[in-house]
Amino acid sequence: MSIRWHDYYSECARRMTSSAIREILKFAQRPEIISFAGGMPAPELFPTKEMEEICSYTLTEKGTEALQYGITEGYPPLRSFLVEKMAAYGLGTSEENIVVTAGSQQALDLIGRVFLDPGDAILLEKPSYVGAIQAWRAYGVKFATVPLDEKGMRVDLLEEAIMESKPKFIYVLPNFHNPAGVTLALERREKLVELAARHSVPIVEDDPYGELRYEGEHLPPLAVLDAKRNGGNVLYLGTFSKLIAPGLRLGWVVAPAEVARQLVLAKQGADLHTNSFGQVMVYEYCRRGLLQPHIEEIIATYRERRDAMLAALERYFPEGVRWTKPEGGLFLWVILPEEVDSVELLKEAVEEKVAFVPGTAFYADGTGHNTMRLTFATANPEMIEEGIKRLGKAIKKRLEAS
Amino acid sequence: MSIRWHDYYSECARRMTSSAIREILKFAQRPEIISFAGGMPAPELFPTKEMEEICSYTLTEKGTEALQYGITEGYPPLRSFLVEKMAAYGLGTSEENIVVTAGSQQALDLIGRVFLDPGDAILLEKPSYVGAIQAWRAYGVKFATVPLDEKGMRVDLLEEAIMESKPKFIYVLPNFHNPAGVTLALERREKLVELAARHSVPIVEDDPYGELRYEGEHLPPLAVLDAKRNGGNVLYLGTFSKLIAPGLRLGWVVAPAEVARQLVLAKQGADLHTNSFGQVMVYEYCRRGLLQPHIEEIIATYRERRDAMLAALERYFPEGVRWTKPEGGLFLWVILPEEVDSVELLKEAVEEKVAFVPGTAFYADGTGHNTMRLTFATANPEMIEEGIKRLGKAIKKRLEAS
Repeated sequence: MSIRWHDYYSECARRMTSSAIREILKFAQRPEIISFAGGMPAPELFPTKEMEEICSYTLTEKGTEALQYGITEGYPPLRSFLVEKMAAYGLGTSEENIVVTAGSQQALDLIGRVFLDPGDAILLEKPSYVGAIQAWRAYGVKFATVPLDEKGMRVDLLEEAIMESKPKFIYVLPNFHNPAGVTLALERREKLVELAARHSVPIVEDDPYGELRYEGEHLPPLAVLDAKRNGGNVLYLGTFSKLIAPGLRLGWVVAPAEVARQLVLAKQGADLHTNSFGQVMVYEYCRRGLLQPHIEEIIATYRERRDAMLAALERYFPEGVRWTKPEGGLFLWVILPEEVDSVELLKEAVEEKVAFVPGTAFYADGTGHNTMRLTFATANPEMIEEGIKRLGKAIKKRLEAS
Repeated sequence: MSIRWHDYYSECARRMTSSAIREILKFAQRPEIISFAGGMPAPELFPTKEMEEICSYTLTEKGTEALQYGITEGYPPLRSFLVEKMAAYGLGTSEENIVVTAGSQQALDLIGRVFLDPGDAILLEKPSYVGAIQAWRAYGVKFATVPLDEKGMRVDLLEEAIMESKPKFIYVLPNFHNPAGVTLALERREKLVELAARHSVPIVEDDPYGELRYEGEHLPPLAVLDAKRNGGNVLYLGTFSKLIAPGLRLGWVVAPAEVARQLVLAKQGADLHTNSFGQVMVYEYCRRGLLQPHIEEIIATYRERRDAMLAALERYFPEGVRWTKPEGGLFLWVILPEEVDSVELLKEAVEEKVAFVPGTAFYADGTGHNTMRLTFATANPEMIEEGIKRLGKAIKKRLEAS
């Protein structure tokens, strides 16, 4: 008798959901479609030439380290480099605070594994990163939210939300928020860190785009503000996905040593260690001083694209549509008139040969029907102009239909 | 107030255990020690030269695929190649049955996530692979065991164990068992598949070493025998770790399509996808026809080392010590006289500058105090001779002391 697999699935498996949007977006991969949907960096910026030389060096000089099993914590020279990198942010750490992960996504999952039991609450921004929501939903948690505005999380509403939801931790993307594109203002950062400490709630600070700032001054990470208060309350997540290449799957967590050890235990069971080859290559790339100039190049390109998108939005989007003006990162956020459902709009848009991500996926509570996320990173200025023109047309059609 | 992190840990985190043996084995990494402890392939066999050429090709010709985000299921050409590879084993599948994972370890973990709730039972061989035990222990499961002998799992004891423990699945390493080095006999394979089907218990077949056979004929995987009965009851796990290099972290699962889809959902939350760079490189390596000749080379080297170890054991180990004679793989298993505790022996051995893994780690029930695992893969024949001589001396000392 053949097995009815569904009867064997765990509670965790039953909580996993595939996104309906993912299905619609499959159509968006056709070549004639201009896509503002992905969260991908621009592939033409990948440093393939330098990587080629580094690959050759790695295999000749570091073949065993690059191909053999490695320690779960991560390649020691890479962790030392990350200690220096964090020091440049103003954060004093040592190697025992750093765990290398298979992208930030694995860091989110390991944090879920180490901290979350069914019924626990997590406090998120509204909207928040869909990958975090998906990863933690499987652990059976409840989501409580605090709305955000142009200056990031509405910290004035935070204390009440903490007291009401009693969260296991607060998850926040302070820089160039995904999906909203906004940045948490300095005074809000200070307030957030203070409130979290007062209520003994840890903060998970997710910072994939922090170095991709196109205007204004860098603001201190929450982890730095917390360290100044001797807090030790923040888990900081970084990644090379947007700085070098996501296909390498390399991220890192900075955590108090005891939490780092627990994350390592969890990672032993999850995949033993992050791929050595990518770790050795990225370390070598950084050691040669190639990272900083490369980031400058990315910034120049993305800044131009952001400006092109902002200009096109002014030109082609109808009255009553609002959007954020990101100072960095990959995304901006569009708020449509209440009567426009962005999932319906996407169908129209795909017919016009343009795509985006409808906003509901980013709302843990399923609201946000009239919002959408656009990335300006992957299309060049001409395509951005054309794509926004098409999208403006689709929006006007929906407005007329409603 | 600083956070008392331990109070925030999940039930899952509290079940995670670090191995005491791991601590002892840290001493075993000193260069003067001959180590039979690791489960690592021999690094001098890594195909670094061919990889160098392939790296260069990959970055020049496939840069975007190798560095960009990929789909969770795995790089499509690699999955097509794996379909062909499985066909050569006698297993008919298609791409929808294949999920590429970050090594077999991730496959074990994803299976845990999809199938295991606290209180569930898993039926294992005794001894069994420590990485599986560690991964699943975190899910709060109970372990039931069936002993093995020179012909693998004692299938004559299986039905009773199934009825008593009502397991979620049966986990088995049929080829060149880790740690025991034994191979499941054909008639036992047939019986196992039949019993599992009769009781509607899925089988997780872990086969990291199946192609590394040094003598005798290949036996059909359980998945093939099950398919012949139209079973669809087996999840088959393969890996490139021992065939090419573990640092790439590349394994795969073959599963019924609906289970593969569920594993993909779980993997989305866990790490989005397996590193693209490694997938593209390994695909190219296989496409060029380099895998099979490379396997032949590994086999020739490991066969010589296995023979050297078997000869040295005869020469240097005292009366009353028994060991398995593996037909392939990396390991053999030593059963010491009852009065020798192999954790105590390891301390003595490290003083003699030789190391191994004490057997208890492989016993889900904590027994096996007088057993140990030796790998013959990483030392050359001269070092094997010397190391076994040292180990024989340590054993004799323990026997005299007891």
